[in-house]
Amino acid sequence: MEELLNTTAGDLAQLKYAVDTFYFLICGALVMWMAAGFAMLEAGLVRAKNTTEILTKNISLYAIACTMYLLCGYFIMYSSDAGGILPNIGALIGDENGVDAVLAGGDDAPYYSSRSDFFFQVVFVATAMSIVSGAVAERMKLWAFLAFAVVMTGFIYPVEGYWTWGGGFLSEAGFSDFAGSGIVHMAGASAALAGVLMLGARKGKYGKNGSINAIPGANLPLATLGTFILWMGWFGFNGGSQLKLSNVEDANAVAQVFINTNAAAAGGCIAALIVARLLFKKADLTMALNGALAGLVAITADPLSPTALSSTVIGAVGGVIVVFSILTLDKMRIDDPVGAISVHGVVGIWGLLAVPLNNADATFGAQLLGIISIFAWVFIASLVVWSILKAAMGIRISEEEEYEGADIAECGMEAYPEFKSAGK
Amino acid sequence: MEELLNTTAGDLAQLKYAVDTFYFLICGALVMWMAAGFAMLEAGLVRAKNTTEILTKNISLYAIACTMYLLCGYFIMYSSDAGGILPNIGALIGDENGVDAVLAGGDDAPYYSSRSDFFFQVVFVATAMSIVSGAVAERMKLWAFLAFAVVMTGFIYPVEGYWTWGGGFLSEAGFSDFAGSGIVHMAGASAALAGVLMLGARKGKYGKNGSINAIPGANLPLATLGTFILWMGWFGFNGGSQLKLSNVEDANAVAQVFINTNAAAAGGCIAALIVARLLFKKADLTMALNGALAGLVAITADPLSPTALSSTVIGAVGGVIVVFSILTLDKMRIDDPVGAISVHGVVGIWGLLAVPLNNADATFGAQLLGIISIFAWVFIASLVVWSILKAAMGIRISEEEEYEGADIAECGMEAYPEFKSAGK
Amino acid sequence: MEELLNTTAGDLAQLKYAVDTFYFLICGALVMWMAAGFAMLEAGLVRAKNTTEILTKNISLYAIACTMYLLCGYFIMYSSDAGGILPNIGALIGDENGVDAVLAGGDDAPYYSSRSDFFFQVVFVATAMSIVSGAVAERMKLWAFLAFAVVMTGFIYPVEGYWTWGGGFLSEAGFSDFAGSGIVHMAGASAALAGVLMLGARKGKYGKNGSINAIPGANLPLATLGTFILWMGWFGFNGGSQLKLSNVEDANAVAQVFINTNAAAAGGCIAALIVARLLFKKADLTMALNGALAGLVAITADPLSPTALSSTVIGAVGGVIVVFSILTLDKMRIDDPVGAISVHGVVGIWGLLAVPLNNADATFGAQLLGIISIFAWVFIASLVVWSILKAAMGIRISEEEEYEGADIAECGMEAYPEFKSAGK
Repeated sequence: MEELLNTTAGDLAQLKYAVDTFYFLICGALVMWMAAGFAMLEAGLVRAKNTTEILTKNISLYAIACTMYLLCGYFIMYSSDAGGILPNIGALIGDENGVDAVLAGGDDAPYYSSRSDFFFQVVFVATAMSIVSGAVAERMKLWAFLAFAVVMTGFIYPVEGYWTWGGGFLSEAGFSDFAGSGIVHMAGASAALAGVLMLGARKGKYGKNGSINAIPGANLPLATLGTFILWMGWFGFNGGSQLKLSNVEDANAVAQVFINTNAAAAGGCIAALIVARLLFKKADLTMALNGALAGLVAITADPLSPTALSSTVIGAVGGVIVVFSILTLDKMRIDDPVGAISVHGVVGIWGLLAVPLNNADATFGAQLLGIISIFAWVFIASLVVWSILKAAMGIRISEEEEYEGADIAECGMEAYPEFKSAGK
Repeated sequence: MEELLNTTAGDLAQLKYAVDTFYFLICGALVMWMAAGFAMLEAGLVRAKNTTEILTKNISLYAIACTMYLLCGYFIMYSSDAGGILPNIGALIGDENGVDAVLAGGDDAPYYSSRSDFFFQVVFVATAMSIVSGAVAERMKLWAFLAFAVVMTGFIYPVEGYWTWGGGFLSEAGFSDFAGSGIVHMAGASAALAGVLMLGARKGKYGKNGSINAIPGANLPLATLGTFILWMGWFGFNGGSQLKLSNVEDANAVAQVFINTNAAAAGGCIAALIVARLLFKKADLTMALNGALAGLVAITADPLSPTALSSTVIGAVGGVIVVFSILTLDKMRIDDPVGAISVHGVVGIWGLLAVPLNNADATFGAQLLGIISIFAWVFIASLVVWSILKAAMGIRISEEEEYEGADIAECGMEAYPEFKSAGK
Repeated sequence: MEELLNTTAGDLAQLKYAVDTFYFLICGALVMWMAAGFAMLEAGLVRAKNTTEILTKNISLYAIACTMYLLCGYFIMYSSDAGGILPNIGALIGDENGVDAVLAGGDDAPYYSSRSDFFFQVVFVATAMSIVSGAVAERMKLWAFLAFAVVMTGFIYPVEGYWTWGGGFLSEAGFSDFAGSGIVHMAGASAALAGVLMLGARKGKYGKNGSINAIPGANLPLATLGTFILWMGWFGFNGGSQLKLSNVEDANAVAQVFINTNAAAAGGCIAALIVARLLFKKADLTMALNGALAGLVAITADPLSPTALSSTVIGAVGGVIVVFSILTLDKMRIDDPVGAISVHGVVGIWGLLAVPLNNADATFGAQLLGIISIFAWVFIASLVVWSILKAAMGIRISEEEEYEGADIAECGMEAYPEFKSAGK
């Protein structure tokens, strides 16, 4: 009987390990799916003549992110001594857990596969990088962009990721960012902002007389599909960030995260739709899409503590912010074709600042420290990298190439060769 | 040793709770994905000039459904005394289960997170509402539609949902509808029929001489993608409706539901393809798509009792019905651009009537009572709401707006601004 | 106390069964999703005038595969005596496991639902068939194709599947193919090659003077979406092929398979992008997409034994091979519009030959035996079937139909009726 009991207890420990591992892998697969969401969203919001290039960027950056994070990013982010600013620089992802270590039990025993952890983390770094591609669309050189992706995913992101999730100084300081409103989304937007400032606006976007010309996206069903994909993938993004599922408390937490994530996206979508109606007298689809995404970004900093109703409100505030942020950036002549800086950066800040409203463990001071630290690091490091790339190979396609479209110049093929263009 | 046994038994109870919760959440995420499926299906089957508007409707109705069901729908549907027609009217979704309640065990002990239950249910209400948008496409005012969505998802659907799934009178009467052929699909189609009758047909659809003019969809790859998305999401829709997974019997049931759902869709697709071939001499893609969806709707009333082969037949009958139903509705000059009333309504009735063929617990009498009750309630309540909206704000766009396209009139932007239209 | 222990041990056995069943079902749903991936990939890579037809083929072949595998394929593949070449010919999928059999324990006790096994297997056969449709696109008769699908999914595939996975002679000989680089992918490519050789090239593809004319795909965002869908679905394809999850060792294995699958796709994408850059001076999107798919095919023969870094290399070699293979086939005037024979056939062979490099249990001899046996059987059997179909009903549409497009000829409807074509 004692033998049966020990076998049973051991089998149960193994099954828990298997369930938590599976939970991680499925959430990771959903986050991977977000790469497709960004690709479709951005391909839908650019002009037809720049579509092949943005698609090429999106699938390539995902491949680069996965490879660089394997080669060094994961090590930098998670293998360093705790508490500091400077991470260790090393390579590869370490060993898998043995059965004995799992069965030994205790607080330090591994409770899910270290490979499933890598899988979940590697799809996050791709998300951060995906944010950049939309903002610099329609005018950046493809190979310069991919070179930036190498540094961003292999070094810039892992360093600031280490500060919080790897146990670095922001973690010590009490900075609270559940699934990465700041660490992933605002970081991506900071790199994007640096790129956009270096690049300048697209030709024809801003007139000499101060006019702002709308440049409509070529394929709104694609943009809508991308938003739905992101919405779905976000269940993995936030839901997996609880990091554990296998008991009542954690299972309840994951379920709360799912409904809050959904509620915030719904709130953001409705709020942006209404604000756009009041401002423009129309039901502006692109604002509704950006509103939903803003709701998702806003709740990502803490999708666990608020009630579902509070989450709806947090998302709705994000949806309002994103409309005004997009309009304001345009007035400042910061040309972001897909609104990525507003959605992921400005609303990411809102999400981080909203954490202390619902979570007593968080403080505005620590949140501000995190915002400033991450922005400063990613923005400045990105500026440096973009500057080096500009000097070395140039980062902007020629005026003629921009007129003809990046697709022919960079990729040698049109995205829609048979559909006669009514645009420029 | 007794302590270890008690700990092990408690840990196992918690793990079962976690697994059933996770199963619910993943199935819910798949059902949420169906919202994207409806959006793509409908966007592919309307003309280019009405595409932005149908996309806006689809993402907005999902957001509205999630918010209204949170505010009051879930409470109405699941917090009422059993056995009656009138539900309680209240708000919000109640408390989460505590660990102690789970560990107490017994038949009444909660075995999955109440938040995961809400998540699963909320994506269902969105599905019901998605059905409406396709049928009223290309001529309904966007804001009137969204106002209807508020009432439908916050009140009309929850009331009839309570009748069966909340323990109301249809449940008492023995009405059997496993995952909602009637409660979700026929209900959506009933609301759609009321809307279509109030609206009238699109301009140019029916000639004065009795002719019926085909109005082809603008983007069939999108429609096909939408169908595949719905097919995939339906595994969550039906598979999650077993409500439990964590033992051999339930796991076997969920697996049976998966293969039956797949088999019925396959049967519906093949049958519709063959029938269309016999009638039109061509391999009609839209009929094949609607056939697959019809198979899915047909099996939804009972995807557990039949064998996989019987499920193929049930789906195939649905696929035959849907072709003739679409042709018949057109002869009756009921203009449903995407065939939603046929797929979800007419075939939903077939699905409900097929239940007693394989399930000895069901009776034709109870099935008929359910069909009549749900149809009468949803159709009449919808007629009332559409009438109020017609009087208050109008429900149909002007003839000129219809000619120009709902996209410009309602959304101020085209879905495909660069692709020169060869149509009207 | 003894009673509690026995109950606990029994409940645990049941929960393990449920978890492994759920793992199978979710992986199966991901593989089903690959059907949508093939549909979008192929629809994006053909010309607009042949898009409806390829969509019709894809959804219909999936439906046919599911039905034929239910009727006889599964029985042929998995119900035969071990060790032979000739399988049993019978029908239907057998009984579900009882609770008692599960609780009896021991090595022979079933540990997951037999229905979940069927579900997982049936989506595999659809994958094999999907590979064919792309290669024969733009010129094959739709009904001849569907007739071929009946034989391929009901007989040709199950026979060679039985040889390895059903315990036949290749299994005895030590042929090692974890998730089907050969059994699924090369098999599909072998059938495709037979079809392509019988059909001949598309009109205008190869000039009389030896010139090769590029025929660009009409919708590259669709092709990219299809690739992302396939990449995601492949986590189920390879991850589910471990066949068990519920202990530490298996959970670790599944996680390793996930990261290796992802790493190989990333390696393939990057390698193909770079090779295409060196050859064509451009960032060729279609090569990057085919490179990612090549990486996935290459790792499928053994996604468990290599490290993630080795997997990246295996995938990268696949990405290099696919570019040269596509160019070589074109020089040989073997016209494969989507590159399916190169991606799934040539790279599938590479994947099979790479197994012994990382897995000491595999031998080059056994791998070669498997490659030759599967290719010979599928290629010859397909040639026979294609020949019969050619004699009975013809397999190629007329020259005029090809010029007008298969959509009008076969389906009677255009995929994009409103987008004026700038092509032929």
